[in-house]
Amino acid sequence: MRLSTLLGPDLKAVLTRGEEALRAALEDVHAEDIAEIVEDLDVSDATLIMRALPADRAADVVERLPSDRQVAILSALGDVDAAEILVEVDPDDRVDLVQELDEDRRQEVLAALEEREPEVAEEVRELVGYHPETAGGLMTTELVRLGPDTVIADAIAEIRRLSDEDQAETIYYVYVVGYGDRLLGVVSLRDLILARPDHTLSEIMTEKVVTLIPSDHQERVANMMARYDFTALPVVDEHGVLLGLVTVDDVVDVVIEEATEDAQKQGGIVPLEDSYFATNLREFVWKRGSWLVVLFFGQLLTATVMRRYDDLLARTIDLVIFIPLIIATGGNAGSQSSTLIIRGMTLGEISPRDWVRVVAKEISIGLCLGVLLGALGFLRAFLEDAELDAVRLSGSVAISIVAVVTLASVVGSVLPMVLRRFGFDPAVSSTPFIASVVDVMGLMVYFGVATFVLHLAF
Amino acid sequence: MRLSTLLGPDLKAVLTRGEEALRAALEDVHAEDIAEIVEDLDVSDATLIMRALPADRAADVVERLPSDRQVAILSALGDVDAAEILVEVDPDDRVDLVQELDEDRRQEVLAALEEREPEVAEEVRELVGYHPETAGGLMTTELVRLGPDTVIADAIAEIRRLSDEDQAETIYYVYVVGYGDRLLGVVSLRDLILARPDHTLSEIMTEKVVTLIPSDHQERVANMMARYDFTALPVVDEHGVLLGLVTVDDVVDVVIEEATEDAQKQGGIVPLEDSYFATNLREFVWKRGSWLVVLFFGQLLTATVMRRYDDLLARTIDLVIFIPLIIATGGNAGSQSSTLIIRGMTLGEISPRDWVRVVAKEISIGLCLGVLLGALGFLRAFLEDAELDAVRLSGSVAISIVAVVTLASVVGSVLPMVLRRFGFDPAVSSTPFIASVVDVMGLMVYFGVATFVLHLAF
Repeated sequence: MRLSTLLGPDLKAVLTRGEEALRAALEDVHAEDIAEIVEDLDVSDATLIMRALPADRAADVVERLPSDRQVAILSALGDVDAAEILVEVDPDDRVDLVQELDEDRRQEVLAALEEREPEVAEEVRELVGYHPETAGGLMTTELVRLGPDTVIADAIAEIRRLSDEDQAETIYYVYVVGYGDRLLGVVSLRDLILARPDHTLSEIMTEKVVTLIPSDHQERVANMMARYDFTALPVVDEHGVLLGLVTVDDVVDVVIEEATEDAQKQGGIVPLEDSYFATNLREFVWKRGSWLVVLFFGQLLTATVMRRYDDLLARTIDLVIFIPLIIATGGNAGSQSSTLIIRGMTLGEISPRDWVRVVAKEISIGLCLGVLLGALGFLRAFLEDAELDAVRLSGSVAISIVAVVTLASVVGSVLPMVLRRFGFDPAVSSTPFIASVVDVMGLMVYFGVATFVLHLAF
Repeated sequence: MRLSTLLGPDLKAVLTRGEEALRAALEDVHAEDIAEIVEDLDVSDATLIMRALPADRAADVVERLPSDRQVAILSALGDVDAAEILVEVDPDDRVDLVQELDEDRRQEVLAALEEREPEVAEEVRELVGYHPETAGGLMTTELVRLGPDTVIADAIAEIRRLSDEDQAETIYYVYVVGYGDRLLGVVSLRDLILARPDHTLSEIMTEKVVTLIPSDHQERVANMMARYDFTALPVVDEHGVLLGLVTVDDVVDVVIEEATEDAQKQGGIVPLEDSYFATNLREFVWKRGSWLVVLFFGQLLTATVMRRYDDLLARTIDLVIFIPLIIATGGNAGSQSSTLIIRGMTLGEISPRDWVRVVAKEISIGLCLGVLLGALGFLRAFLEDAELDAVRLSGSVAISIVAVVTLASVVGSVLPMVLRRFGFDPAVSSTPFIASVVDVMGLMVYFGVATFVLHLAF
């Protein structure tokens, strides 16, 4: 049950009673829950709520809205209100938000922001240049950076100050920088608290720092965080200059988002921007239809192949009735292989250079599975009340299944690696795509085998 | 390139030079990188390395190994060595590890642990009862818990002590507990540092705490963390008694692991325990073969359906050549729908109670896509040099595509919801499974439509 349904009539009543009443009603509600309400209201009611909230609370709510809602609300609010909220939004979210606005609106809001907080505005202009799905796009510039000679006690005092003014995304790491903001080391808050207050940062810092560069893709960032168990990683440029910081809470969102995108690509859909119910018919038809049309044209080849074998097919329908069984079985085996390889590449476990090992492995797996399923196919065909010689028919079906399953396993594994090797997204070789390729191959194998076996004299 | 390949000959040389040399060589290497080396060596060499490391470093390495490796190494080490490492392993990882050991070995190691650290051993025995994929299985019991009347200065001193003795998984939250360990509130380290030292915890604590219960599934835990942007969440029992704490770094691992499992289920594979290359042929044949056999039996129905329509099929192969095209197009549309619904349910965006809205949406999407693809099918069939009347053939193909695509969209969306509703894992309705169901339906629709259209007088 959505909160807004639950609160429905009460909420409507409060909305008409003005800002004061609204502010009082929302005082104790978690920002996440206000966001859920705002998401379900129409834009004008939602804007009323946003105006009633203090700017910092409004910012917490905005951060939790889906991107189309954020844009709608920031556009409905005046430039000044929007700028006031933007100042309070986390820097990394702020940039994403400004990036979502259309060009005109972006300039208006940035101008209003410039007037209020020139430094913030400049920082946004700088960060807007990074792609949102990279470390540069995910990072915040609000971090604790101090010189190597800072005494522990002073460092703690500085953390207090920054935290008090809400100018640090995380206070759990202090980054030690030297000349030209070059990153020298890192000190955790834990180390700070445990150290003697008169020591300096350079005495207790860890010099081997795992770092990111701005162009690192978010998937790599997530894998690094999971691998090294850090709650934040610094971003540096090619000269080792500290640019910003990516925190683990942003990474959880990223991992969930990536998993959704990957699942949709695997299912043959152009990834959606929003949730299922928030996506409209036109977008669905476009994002599903474009792939379906491509796959349809691929599938047209099956009709062409079958027409080429019309003599064989016209002789008896005994062969025809096993067509769906054979091509679908191949498609299933191929889908399994492509799923395993695509996921393995995403996790960094498999690289296109491993192709020899992969092909060797898939051939042995494919042969085992093929023989197993071929035996079942032989039995089924043998029991068929057929016009053709039972052994020849069953033999054709069984041999075809072995060949198709093995071939499909190899194709399903090699195709994603080839795509990756040439710089394409391997997820293009989605389950339906592999199935289509395998359908065409499967028909050719089956008709080839059947022609050979039926002409065989024995 | 794997580190072990890079270091290969050097490593072998060092391994023969004894513990001292090994320890010196590994001193500056990150635990993650040692883990990579240990993963690639055979068990006896790996055990040499583990013995050479101090227990706390060995524990860091063990935490990073895949589970089969962990078990192999803990079994190869003596009970006492194993217990010594276990003491240093993070409590939540420790329980997972003990859970992986076989029953006999588990009792031996726990006995050795009991002798060294009776409290730790008892805690493990307690936590082993929770399923590893729940909040109970993920949680650690090493957290900072203090009474409400504790003065800030004392709280900070206590955090120092616990952190110094490595007895807190996170020091970023202090949990305030009352009588019987009931959770009263939470104070972040940030709040502590900012507060006046003579205040008490009860004065600054947040009383509205978002909590987990031990049986919460890890997917829910991950969604809660992403939603509320916390770096740790407390676990309480039904009476509000604080049991433990789940930290965000464990959740990142969990989200990646879940995404892998989901992808494999969607591809029609029983999820693998290990990485692609670490999985052997027998396991692959079993985990892929079991689904392929089930799907194969389902696909046998296609042969049965086709045999029932052999009169129709024997008349001309014009109808036959469009069979793969029609059933594959249906399968693709159905796969898209099931992918969207399964992912939506995983994220909590769609619930089985939404079925009316989903079906309405899928009917309209399916009709749009069906008409689009049906038009293409009409053109292709019309251009075919067919024995049948071109309009009748093309009409049969087009109408069938519209019907099959719409039906497939509905079935692909409803089936996962029905499975979830009756307590099954919706991922059982994998892409290949939906395709198989749709193949059988598609044939029946196509032959039904063709029979009707071809007999139609016009």
